[in-house]
Amino acid sequence: MKLAKDADRIIKKFIQTRVNEAGAKGVVIGLSGGVDSATTLALAVSALGKEKVYGLILPSHDSESIAIATNHAEILGVKTKKIDISPIVKAYKDGSDTFSHRLAEGNLNSRIRMTLLYGESFVSNFLVAGTSNKSELLLGYYTKWGDGASDFLPIGDLYKSQVYLLADLLDIPIEIIQRPPTAELWEGQTDEADLGMNYRELDVILEMIENFSSVEKISSTTSMNLKDIQRIDDMIRFSIHKRIFPSVCKLGYRTVGIDWRETLGTFKKL
Amino acid sequence: MKLAKDADRIIKKFIQTRVNEAGAKGVVIGLSGGVDSATTLALAVSALGKEKVYGLILPSHDSESIAIATNHAEILGVKTKKIDISPIVKAYKDGSDTFSHRLAEGNLNSRIRMTLLYGESFVSNFLVAGTSNKSELLLGYYTKWGDGASDFLPIGDLYKSQVYLLADLLDIPIEIIQRPPTAELWEGQTDEADLGMNYRELDVILEMIENFSSVEKISSTTSMNLKDIQRIDDMIRFSIHKRIFPSVCKLGYRTVGIDWRETLGTFKKL
Repeated sequence: MKLAKDADRIIKKFIQTRVNEAGAKGVVIGLSGGVDSATTLALAVSALGKEKVYGLILPSHDSESIAIATNHAEILGVKTKKIDISPIVKAYKDGSDTFSHRLAEGNLNSRIRMTLLYGESFVSNFLVAGTSNKSELLLGYYTKWGDGASDFLPIGDLYKSQVYLLADLLDIPIEIIQRPPTAELWEGQTDEADLGMNYRELDVILEMIENFSSVEKISSTTSMNLKDIQRIDDMIRFSIHKRIFPSVCKLGYRTVGIDWRETLGTFKKL
Repeated sequence: MKLAKDADRIIKKFIQTRVNEAGAKGVVIGLSGGVDSATTLALAVSALGKEKVYGLILPSHDSESIAIATNHAEILGVKTKKIDISPIVKAYKDGSDTFSHRLAEGNLNSRIRMTLLYGESFVSNFLVAGTSNKSELLLGYYTKWGDGASDFLPIGDLYKSQVYLLADLLDIPIEIIQRPPTAELWEGQTDEADLGMNYRELDVILEMIENFSSVEKISSTTSMNLKDIQRIDDMIRFSIHKRIFPSVCKLGYRTVGIDWRETLGTFKKL
């Protein structure tokens, strides 16, 4: 509870700072009906006021998540727009035969949503608030340049299990909290089936890795399977490319993404 | 000439290393008919062989650049595919009214191209080679999560003027070298008109900034207008958000994008 209250206070200040320093007028958030985007939405409303927050609901097919997301935004008094992305998906598929695999289609959906969020960001001078949590970021469990692409990440340092604690504090509707986490990449997909374990188990592993425990140490402490822990450790290492600026071939004195120093304090959207 | 020969050798090795460590089978490159993508293409062919390189030509309207890009790829023996992106642009515009401003449409085109490149990347297990140069990266003169989004940046540490030296060494066709640099964001757009100076002048400023010269020092050394130099310096500062991982609100012990350490050597695409 202490953690959730601290996180609530710090993240609200963080959202205000990011928006102010960018000279932006508010934030736009993609609402999926899941706990991450609902929590980010509630934090943004409490940080900025409901007039400075806008929700985009971007379904690829009919789903109960549309009503759930709309309902939550209405409770908070936040304006939303719903855009059915399936005609855009079709236009891509008509132009290229590379999107038939269900993973490829999932990535396509995610990049279309990013593109629509940035369209809104451009006309409104709103920042795009990403909704990724720390569990997803570490595993690379998101689409590169899709849902992984945003202007800032309010809950990016909270593990999924911690997001639930914060959601509880923020009175996120029970219908959102009780839904099984899903990226909705395809019908019936759930995160925990994908990952082969539930988020509570996963987050224990991730937090021990964060504290520099070896896979052997984690296995002996938690009595979880060594192979499962090794798989999680591999996912972190193999997804490095999703968490860094694209690797630049160093030739000059100071190189972007390597040793060209960037001061966070002067973020500004032009 | 020494610089171009060194760059040629080092970048080829860089391309081989990135592809091998990712367990990828080759690279896909978006070909615009401009000198950056042509140089990147020639480097990739010489690093990997023509069979491991694939070119996508992604026009939004009829343009001489299509023939120029196709012709260059044919000379190198590289397979290409042309996809007209205008039906996809239309699908976005039908779904959202946020893309009517010409800058917004330019960003949209760029993000559509990224999405198509990653579609190809997925089915072929090819990496997406970005074609941004150091002048563009520093100014933020590209679309966030559009042409700025790739797996690695072979010429990302070469200023535009240095890219021309390398292009010359690599025998890039004269019709490509002599075209005025343009992002083709709209008809008749040229980079140098956008920037208010030519790349030679710009790169002198950027290189002095890289070496920590003040704007006053640069102005007195080059006898260029202080205001113009200040504007370039501002562009570097205001585009920081395009060169970093999205800002995460720090709450935990180690935070992604801040102090979660990433080892470049284990990049792997899954």
